[in-house]
Amino acid sequence: PRRFMNEVVDFALAVKNLGQEDPRRIVHAFKVGLAITIVSLFYYYQPLYNGFGVSAMWAVLTVVVVFEFSVGATLGKGFNRMMATCVAGFLGVCAHHLASLSGKTGEPILLGIFGFLVAGIMTFMRFFPKMKARYDYGFVIFILTFCLVAVSGYRADQVIKIAQQRLSTIIIGSWIAMLICISIRPVWSGTELHNLIASNIHKLGIFLEVCGSEWLLYSCIIKWLKSTGFGQEFFNKTAEEKPKEDKSFRNQYKSVLGSKASEEAMANLAAWEPSHGRFKFRHPWKQYLKVGALARQCAYRVDALNTYLNSSVQIPEEIQENVKEACIRLSSELGKALKDLSFEIKKMQRTSSTKKHVNKSKTAAQDLKSLLETRVVWENFNMLDVLPTATV
Amino acid sequence: PRRFMNEVVDFALAVKNLGQEDPRRIVHAFKVGLAITIVSLFYYYQPLYNGFGVSAMWAVLTVVVVFEFSVGATLGKGFNRMMATCVAGFLGVCAHHLASLSGKTGEPILLGIFGFLVAGIMTFMRFFPKMKARYDYGFVIFILTFCLVAVSGYRADQVIKIAQQRLSTIIIGSWIAMLICISIRPVWSGTELHNLIASNIHKLGIFLEVCGSEWLLYSCIIKWLKSTGFGQEFFNKTAEEKPKEDKSFRNQYKSVLGSKASEEAMANLAAWEPSHGRFKFRHPWKQYLKVGALARQCAYRVDALNTYLNSSVQIPEEIQENVKEACIRLSSELGKALKDLSFEIKKMQRTSSTKKHVNKSKTAAQDLKSLLETRVVWENFNMLDVLPTATV
Repeated sequence: PRRFMNEVVDFALAVKNLGQEDPRRIVHAFKVGLAITIVSLFYYYQPLYNGFGVSAMWAVLTVVVVFEFSVGATLGKGFNRMMATCVAGFLGVCAHHLASLSGKTGEPILLGIFGFLVAGIMTFMRFFPKMKARYDYGFVIFILTFCLVAVSGYRADQVIKIAQQRLSTIIIGSWIAMLICISIRPVWSGTELHNLIASNIHKLGIFLEVCGSEWLLYSCIIKWLKSTGFGQEFFNKTAEEKPKEDKSFRNQYKSVLGSKASEEAMANLAAWEPSHGRFKFRHPWKQYLKVGALARQCAYRVDALNTYLNSSVQIPEEIQENVKEACIRLSSELGKALKDLSFEIKKMQRTSSTKKHVNKSKTAAQDLKSLLETRVVWENFNMLDVLPTATV
Repeated sequence: PRRFMNEVVDFALAVKNLGQEDPRRIVHAFKVGLAITIVSLFYYYQPLYNGFGVSAMWAVLTVVVVFEFSVGATLGKGFNRMMATCVAGFLGVCAHHLASLSGKTGEPILLGIFGFLVAGIMTFMRFFPKMKARYDYGFVIFILTFCLVAVSGYRADQVIKIAQQRLSTIIIGSWIAMLICISIRPVWSGTELHNLIASNIHKLGIFLEVCGSEWLLYSCIIKWLKSTGFGQEFFNKTAEEKPKEDKSFRNQYKSVLGSKASEEAMANLAAWEPSHGRFKFRHPWKQYLKVGALARQCAYRVDALNTYLNSSVQIPEEIQENVKEACIRLSSELGKALKDLSFEIKKMQRTSSTKKHVNKSKTAAQDLKSLLETRVVWENFNMLDVLPTATV
């Protein structure tokens, strides 16, 4: 029993964490409950029930399936569902009429062939990458509605009524889901994407800045330790302990490396969203993907740099001494520039300090480059780090 | 009309390409059509129809929604749907009985509260990352079934019959979808994952090998051109043309950079699959993710190296001369080792040549390292490239 109690406590803690991490999740759960309760009224309230009858269940089903966390996803699913039901319902009725002309034996055969063809063709269409990105759900619903209408038309006499009821209940369900999703504390995928890109650049900035200041501090400590003749033993220990200490803070940038899929998904969803806040209806979401891709490229470089710093490869003292100052300057200036840039993106306004930092880091890069060209170039990423800043 | 014709031709070409790229897509479309035709028989064939009545539509719906491209996804959705319907149907009947005890006015209120609570709690549960990965669809179906059974129980008198019919039709639909998916040319997510990881490593190997031999060729040409006194002008041109030429071949590795999301999705789906071919039921799919992550880390390094090679940074002649030979040897040996490794993974058997190449590249890396330590180290990634090989 104690083990069971422990598990219950663990579970409660996990729930609490989940809620605290992003309180919008609790709001979302509340919204879904509310939408379902509202749509259930169609059953409980007699006058409404008289209008739709058992078909009201399609409205409940629609709300459950369509309601998603972000506005973009909900709108996308809602419109897909409505459009697909409308077109497929019409075609289903047509197919039913066509099939019924061929008599009692021919009808099921023709309907079977229609179903097979529509299902096959639509399933194949889902593989088009462009279609998949925006209309995948629509194709599924298209197959579904076509089959339901055409097939159940074989038994029921009022095919048109079935199609009509299905369409109207689905429209009602979709609109309830979409309205509640937008009106109560909406989560816009567009804003999410915007913030994600900004925070990704910010994380890279943090790494470079911390990295610069840390190297400064670190090399000062080493110099002091060596001058006081403190044992090599202690020095080695520090070197090993160092990466662990601020891992959580410095390694935030790692999440940038794998953000491609979520960025693309968000951009697709954001395209469904209407004008909100500072974003217009046809906001150029694709541009965000480009900036995101550049940020990711920068993150690959930063990652290579990070493993380099953590690796045990020893640089000859003399060269380290020469290059150090320029590197530190470059790194911290770049970090500041990226942080300013992310601030600019977030607030959607230009600040003068970014320009300053970018210029400073450019000169730092030039200095470093000229310094290195007299020796060997091991830092190729400098040029590329400046790239994202050039795009804005 | 000509523009329209052009568009039709374009579309036909796109369809053809899509089919040629992966013929399994056509098979998949055919399978879906077949499954829907079979499930439609429940409507057309009188004895079967008598058993289920209008509820047979749930079977059609289930097939459309559950049938996915890979076996893993289909099984996952099918089992989720069946389990969730079973549990939620039972709870829905319970809720209905509980509510009906409270009289005609209390019933809709109680049912509304139940619906709200279940929908809210289940929606919140979907945010648990572990739950989301494997049971997300189950939660949606749970809410759906609970609401349908509990709510429609308010109007219909035979709640238990509704729940039973829904459950049995969904089980039939799921099994039809799953059986057809497995029996006709199945696409196993597990095998896909296996091949993806192998091909990712292969791509990295190709890059390194090509890179090595190209550098050799390239530097030979330069030397020859310079010795014949051929103008710097022409030489620059060659340098610019080079990257474009074999971009498609050499840059295959770029797809490795963003493969994280698809790898994780595949591993999740693969967990649903039964024993097939050389894979057992509880094949350690998580291990693939680890190897995949290492390959990706290696790809980040390779990417950094690639931009370095494409960049205009000039290395002093003298050092280039010194380092070149060791670099080329390392690069091509590493490439061969990675290619062998991918072959090993693909065939699931060890070959002796991999060990040989790994050892050769290790010595090459050592040579290079000692060579560089007398100067400046700019290649830190060597050590890391060897990492993935160590894991197998």
